[in-house]
Amino acid sequence: MRQINTEPLTAPAFAPFGDVLDATGAHRLINAGLCQRHHDRAKLDFGDARAGVSIFLAQVRALPYAFTLIERHPEASQTFIPMTQHSFLVIVAPDPQATPRAFLTNGSQGINLHRATWHGVLTPLQSPGLFAVVDRIGSTLNIEEHHYTDPWTVAE
Amino acid sequence: MRQINTEPLTAPAFAPFGDVLDATGAHRLINAGLCQRHHDRAKLDFGDARAGVSIFLAQVRALPYAFTLIERHPEASQTFIPMTQHSFLVIVAPDPQATPRAFLTNGSQGINLHRATWHGVLTPLQSPGLFAVVDRIGSTLNIEEHHYTDPWTVAE
Repeated sequence: MRQINTEPLTAPAFAPFGDVLDATGAHRLINAGLCQRHHDRAKLDFGDARAGVSIFLAQVRALPYAFTLIERHPEASQTFIPMTQHSFLVIVAPDPQATPRAFLTNGSQGINLHRATWHGVLTPLQSPGLFAVVDRIGSTLNIEEHHYTDPWTVAE
Repeated sequence: MRQINTEPLTAPAFAPFGDVLDATGAHRLINAGLCQRHHDRAKLDFGDARAGVSIFLAQVRALPYAFTLIERHPEASQTFIPMTQHSFLVIVAPDPQATPRAFLTNGSQGINLHRATWHGVLTPLQSPGLFAVVDRIGSTLNIEEHHYTDPWTVAE
């Protein structure tokens, strides 16, 4: 068993893996000044297929959290928008041989995983694990999995 | 001043205007059975442009809520995903001459407005008014507005 520790999700730290989607930084005002629009924050990529919005309801996990599986979608990006204001765990890895990283969101952040980024399955830490997901709707499988022989554990 | 009353947001009632995005109804199990995927729930349409994900932070409104403006996007759909588990107000209208309708979400529902649907501006009822929005990223203005001479008020 190998251990990694959570780190706070920030845009610079997450940049090699994807985008942090939140209401910080540059924006324009719309609706007569009553709404901030943080415009076009995700690098979307659906290959030769189309975008869709799905709703995910995932079972809640707890720390320390052990995992042996990471996966990636070679043909498309995947956006996760939490529909509750709870932090969730974002496990990513540069490649299956490297040490994975475990980011903890602050409750007001979504993420967009860039095309072909290795990541863990969706891991909410508080109920309900409710997310909107923007991903590729296509006819191909669009998934690769890697199983670690020696499990990883994420601790706080 | 003319008055309308809120009604609960349900998929059948909202069907003429758009899609209700929630974790009810048919789904598939993914991630070894630990996650429900309610697949491809929104009728997306970005015309000849592309999809983007933006984050909106809107000022909170209260009921009774008076409004004189509705708008529509003739070239694309627009999806609103609440990032807090609070209900929000969804004002829509079949056309500018008809009586508008005011739906109240249950806190676990997003919506997708179909292309060219007349709607009010984003109206959260609790702070923070934080939403992810999936809409058209293009070079055209893609908006029409209608101003009512006689205002409408939404009461509970």
